Formats: sequence, structure tokens, C-alpha cells
Amino acid sequence: MIKLYELSGKNSVIFSPYCWRVRLALLHKQLKFSSVETAFTDITKIHDGTFKTVPVLCDDKININDSFNIIEYLEAAYPAKPSLFKSNEGRALSMFIEAWASSLHPDIARMAIADIYSHLQDKDRTYFRETRESFFGKNLEIVQEESFELAKESFLVKLNLLEKHLIKTEFIGGECPLYPDFIVFGSLQWLLTTSLHFEVNNLPDNTKIWFSKICSTYSIKNKEFE
Amino acid sequence: MIKLYELSGKNSVIFSPYCWRVRLALLHKQLKFSSVETAFTDITKIHDGTFKTVPVLCDDKININDSFNIIEYLEAAYPAKPSLFKSNEGRALSMFIEAWASSLHPDIARMAIADIYSHLQDKDRTYFRETRESFFGKNLEIVQEESFELAKESFLVKLNLLEKHLIKTEFIGGECPLYPDFIVFGSLQWLLTTSLHFEVNNLPDNTKIWFSKICSTYSIKNKEFE
Repeated sequence: MIKLYELSGKNSVIFSPYCWRVRLALLHKQLKFSSVETAFTDITKIHDGTFKTVPVLCDDKININDSFNIIEYLEAAYPAKPSLFKSNEGRALSMFIEAWASSLHPDIARMAIADIYSHLQDKDRTYFRETRESFFGKNLEIVQEESFELAKESFLVKLNLLEKHLIKTEFIGGECPLYPDFIVFGSLQWLLTTSLHFEVNNLPDNTKIWFSKICSTYSIKNKEFE
Repeated sequence: MIKLYELSGKNSVIFSPYCWRVRLALLHKQLKFSSVETAFTDITKIHDGTFKTVPVLCDDKININDSFNIIEYLEAAYPAKPSLFKSNEGRALSMFIEAWASSLHPDIARMAIADIYSHLQDKDRTYFRETRESFFGKNLEIVQEESFELAKESFLVKLNLLEKHLIKTEFIGGECPLYPDFIVFGSLQWLLTTSLHFEVNNLPDNTKIWFSKICSTYSIKNKEFE
């Protein structure tokens, strides 16, 4: 059976945007998989120790990481299962959406870096605090406190583009969810599963409706809808 | 034969982003058309006088405006000709790209509003100056002078997303140009045909290569490549 190594925090919370993308892709393709909850500091214990990031997908004799690589693998290996791209244009849309979603990540990090820390497994805390504080040059709690409002504003301005799109179409990929939807879902889910200060009701209206449709289509139990 | 009413300035310069989108779509679909050069102040003389914007496309018994409407009409009316969307996902990509390209327009307007004015037909000048100065609350030359550098910076930051995409794929829509490519081409061509201060060499590298490929594929004589 397919194994998916996913970043996990305390109480099995799955929060990595890239892991959510692959998790939804597997659900969409109706492929059975077992999730291997993985701490940041245990990533080097996966397989032969060469992986530096998760998700890592192990299937038959292949072990790969990088969410887009994994998606390309799944499309090639399981052509009879529901497609994630549906067409070359769906693949192009996924690539553009991936670049766009990346532009949300610095804002999300600034909105939730201390909250993310608070969700980590104990064994990850020192590693995470040291690397992230070195990156920001500041204490994590101070980064979040000082940046939250401006980062939220910047984030919501960027989401206007998605909101405009979702006024015209039910899903990002058109009439049914495709990989571009899972990319953006992953980014938002990263924020929503970790932030103590941003909830689904803070999303623009159509984005919120779209988000809840993805949750119900793939039976994602989101704390926001419980 | 299809008639395309296009905004035109002095010396027959075609500069409207929306007109360029439809012009390229007609070239891509290999449909013969005659261009009717139209001044801003002559738009109300088209057909029955109900149109407030160009492009207007007249074909057989249909007269329509709005670039996306026109594209949908062309796809439906000429299914045997090369497709502009190729798939539902190509249509979804076009919609997202249209929203994204719209976000470039306020920057382009601020970078080139006085230069655009200088390209207009004499009869359009009073109308254009009055409506645009009323919008900006300032003299057009002052708007451009005061805003150019900041607007250019904002524009180039936004173009990073396109540049990232074009590192991975030859055209926005994938392996061949499609309507998403024509949308962005139209927006850039608006700037490049009018600005006296921004040229194709100011575009990021991959965007520049992509732009010149579109020009050569559809035999667009761009002043920048002459």
C-alpha cells in the first residue's frame, strides 16, 4: 500500500501545505494510503535518509518527495484513476496556481509562526525555534505579534484574485476539484489548522464556500466546521 | 467577413489590451477579419449605438462586445478551428489569468497615462483628458511623472509570478499559445505600444522571450523588435 510521510504536530495535527496537497490528491485519485506521521526532526530517518523535506511518498519500489513530483508520478502511475490535471492546460493551471499560492506563504508564516510553534511535537521545538528565529532575526512570538495585522492585510489583498475567480467558477480548475484546488486548499489549511487568530470566517465569501465544498467532497474534518 | 472594431490612436496604433486579446484570438483561429479602426468618441457610432466599449465583433448576424464574451462566441461558432481554451481547464486558466492580468492594469495606467494620451487621435483628446483627470483628480502628465517609478516597481513585482511560471513552461497555457497567453500579451502590448519609458528589454528574461515568441508566431510587428 502507498505510504505518505506527512509532517505532524502534537495530537496528530497535519499542517504542512505540501502534505495536504498530496493527501487530497490521493483522496481524489481514490488510492488507499497509510499516513506516517513524521516530526521535522525525523525526516532524515525516512527510507535511506536522503530526504530533507516531506511529503515523501513510497509506492511499490519508488520513494519520492516534492509535492509536484509526487503528483506527476501519481498521474503517470495511475492513469485509470480520476485525473488531477485532466489535460495539459490543467497541468499549466496547476503550475501557475502553485507559483501564486507560494506568494501567500510569507504572509501566512508571519501571521502564524508562533502558533505553528505551539502545535509542534516537543522534540521539534528547539530545531524549529532556532532555524526560524535565525531566518527572521527575531523571537517567534515577537515576529507574529508585530507582523500579524500587516501580513493579514497583505494576505487578504492577494486572496481577492482567488475570490474574483471563484465568483465565476465553482472550483479553481472549473466544474470539479482538481490539483489547482488542492494546492490552494493546502496553503489555507496550513493557516487554518495552526492559527489561533485567523479562522475560516475571515476568508472572503466565495473562498469560504469553496473551502467548505472541498472539505465535504473529501470528508476532511476541519476544526472550523465541527 | 468578420469585422473587429478596435480602438486606434494616431498612425493606426492599436493599443487596447482587450482589442489585442481578440485580435490574437482571431489570428490563432485562422479566421479572416477586417479591422475597423475606432476612436474612443466613435464607439457609440458602432452598429445600433448601444456599445460603450470595444472590441466589438460583428459576424454574420451577431454583434457582441466584451473580450471574454467574444472568445466564448468564437469557440462555439468555430469549433473546427484551432481552440483558444483546448479544454475546460484551459477555460479556467483563462479566467484566472484574466483576473491576474487585471491586477497589472492600474500599474500600467499610472506608468503610461500621459504617453497613452500622446498617442490618441486628436478628436479623442478632450474626452480622454477630462475623464481620466477626473478619475485621478490630477493632470495626466503629473500622474505619470509622480507615479511612474512606484508603479513600475509594483508592476515588476507582479510580473515575478509570470516569470516563475515561464521558467517551467514555454507558454502560459502549456506547450502552445492559448487564450491565457493572449490575455497577458494584450496587457503588456498596451504598455509597450504606448510607453515612451518602458520597453521590452525592461521585462524579465523569460517573459521577454515568451513575448517575442508570441510576436513571431502571429507575425505581430512590434516596434520593439523592428
